[in-house]
Amino acid sequence: MITTDILIIGAGPTGLFTVFEAGLLKLKCHLIDALPQPGGQCSEIYPKKPIYDIPAYPEILAGDLTKNLMEQIKQFEPGFTLGERAETIDKQDDGTFIVTTNKGTKHHAKIVAIAGGLGSFEPRKPLIESIINFEDKGVEYIIKEPELYRDKKVVISGGGDSALDWAIFLSDVASEVTLIHRRNEFRGALDSVEKVQELKNLGKINLITPAEVKGILGTDKVTGVVVEKKGEDGFIIDTDHFIPLFGLSPKLGPIGNWGLEIEKNAIKVNNALDYQTNIPGIYAIGDVNTYPGKLKLILCGFHEATLMCQSAYKRIFPDKKYVMKYTTVGGVDGFDGTRKEAPKAVVKAIQ
Amino acid sequence: MITTDILIIGAGPTGLFTVFEAGLLKLKCHLIDALPQPGGQCSEIYPKKPIYDIPAYPEILAGDLTKNLMEQIKQFEPGFTLGERAETIDKQDDGTFIVTTNKGTKHHAKIVAIAGGLGSFEPRKPLIESIINFEDKGVEYIIKEPELYRDKKVVISGGGDSALDWAIFLSDVASEVTLIHRRNEFRGALDSVEKVQELKNLGKINLITPAEVKGILGTDKVTGVVVEKKGEDGFIIDTDHFIPLFGLSPKLGPIGNWGLEIEKNAIKVNNALDYQTNIPGIYAIGDVNTYPGKLKLILCGFHEATLMCQSAYKRIFPDKKYVMKYTTVGGVDGFDGTRKEAPKAVVKAIQ
Repeated sequence: MITTDILIIGAGPTGLFTVFEAGLLKLKCHLIDALPQPGGQCSEIYPKKPIYDIPAYPEILAGDLTKNLMEQIKQFEPGFTLGERAETIDKQDDGTFIVTTNKGTKHHAKIVAIAGGLGSFEPRKPLIESIINFEDKGVEYIIKEPELYRDKKVVISGGGDSALDWAIFLSDVASEVTLIHRRNEFRGALDSVEKVQELKNLGKINLITPAEVKGILGTDKVTGVVVEKKGEDGFIIDTDHFIPLFGLSPKLGPIGNWGLEIEKNAIKVNNALDYQTNIPGIYAIGDVNTYPGKLKLILCGFHEATLMCQSAYKRIFPDKKYVMKYTTVGGVDGFDGTRKEAPKAVVKAIQ
Repeated sequence: MITTDILIIGAGPTGLFTVFEAGLLKLKCHLIDALPQPGGQCSEIYPKKPIYDIPAYPEILAGDLTKNLMEQIKQFEPGFTLGERAETIDKQDDGTFIVTTNKGTKHHAKIVAIAGGLGSFEPRKPLIESIINFEDKGVEYIIKEPELYRDKKVVISGGGDSALDWAIFLSDVASEVTLIHRRNEFRGALDSVEKVQELKNLGKINLITPAEVKGILGTDKVTGVVVEKKGEDGFIIDTDHFIPLFGLSPKLGPIGNWGLEIEKNAIKVNNALDYQTNIPGIYAIGDVNTYPGKLKLILCGFHEATLMCQSAYKRIFPDKKYVMKYTTVGGVDGFDGTRKEAPKAVVKAIQ
């Protein structure tokens, strides 16, 4: 059982920044995310896209935003349960919560902060009936650990940036990479398209278009796929892995059944006070929540996280009076023993 | 008469970021600030201090925060009335406002956003009765234009960073710099204290401690000051300028008489919706406002500014339906004709 003060569901920008604000209050955080790395959409969907509306950043790549937030919170030593989806919540008699993931990992926390963004990102799957039998047995929708493919045969399917980028990356790792797309045209960054063209010309990527994977072969695990090229008969490609990269679509998922008040696929919160939901002790912050005037912007999530942490502190320590100290004045004490503070003024005579 | 869509009172971080959010909505902004430069406290009081709680900045100097915000908003061409204090407000029959400064500058705006921080910074003045007669006639509490002192005699009084830094700076500009402090010890950055010691040793700064300026001489303008060194008789120093740098203290000031609901020296706003005050069309954002759970943090001001701009837009265009576009998707169109946008994906065949 993992124990923590604040369990944050969702490791996107809002969830990550919560660790910082909680840390200033000496509260420990642990984050759960269905994706294999922190950063949410920013890392998974558009790491190379510039964002223009993060205050004081005229421009920042989404991937760098995540990197900077990770740097800002590392002193507060957050825990992570990644690649797992929060599935059930049980309120204990003492008002604390136990949250269990789809893989059975249990987390015990005084406060739950749902920072789930648009929901957990679920892969769009190809319409192959038997595919569920091969999941984690050679079929992967998200690449978590590229080393898994070292010296293996790989078939990637898809026509966007993910398919292009992973085909490029794995061409140096796997023994054979086949890229299959139902159109001749790919949609992605110009570099990536050109790089795939180059690798195809060098014979490092085997390209089959316009074509679709129509079936999967194997007993315990994938041994091949059935491919149909437009207007031609189907044929078999021997492979160890079939990786359909058709994008991710966000789903509120199991959180929708936790008894929270839901409106338009988002969780209603009390924005007049502390972004708490209808269940005391459970907060919802960032894109996952809704209230009058709500804007689904990262900078709003930062504010909501900050007010939420103050409220959480009062809930955990109802009798303590907390006086906010400015970081410019009081500095920042990390849980790892580090201390950040402004250079001190000296008091010194001039003779 | 200056005309604008949103008149922002206070050019601190919250006021500056408002320009960006308004700009995305194609609304023009103009800012008034009592200080001679934008940035509020961050520029005037602690430009060299690191701030640790700006999201995605593990550390940023307050001066750099201002610089980055100015860079972020420049494409929206904000106007500035600096070195003047908003004094009176008159609501027009059409619901717009005219705001007049202490120097008589008039501003006509559809919306007023008070982002006044802790108030306008008023200098702490020495206890010399006649001093008000010499203000702007040789007595300055804030240095707005260093060139004013070129080849002039200057007496600076004070023992903190401002006094030290300006004594250093003006030692290269003025013909004679005298620094007077009531103690032998100065309180400031170590570099600054050491630099003043060095300049004193070189004879470039005339240092008199422990001493106080007790009187001002002159008819139309300052010609000298009376100085008393501890335990000694007073003496006269000829000078063209007397600059007491005893710090600034924030005062809500004339805004307190605008008919706004005030609580604990801050303006009450509707945090459940749009940070509007009790007077429709006047909003209060950042440290100047108060509501249940309020935290006087820069990151909260950013959020408040953003929601406020959306509400302002609806007030100005009650019949238009605005659909928020993400900057990552829609890019940013500056009023200066610039356009920022993410590199476009290409759709391209691979042969």
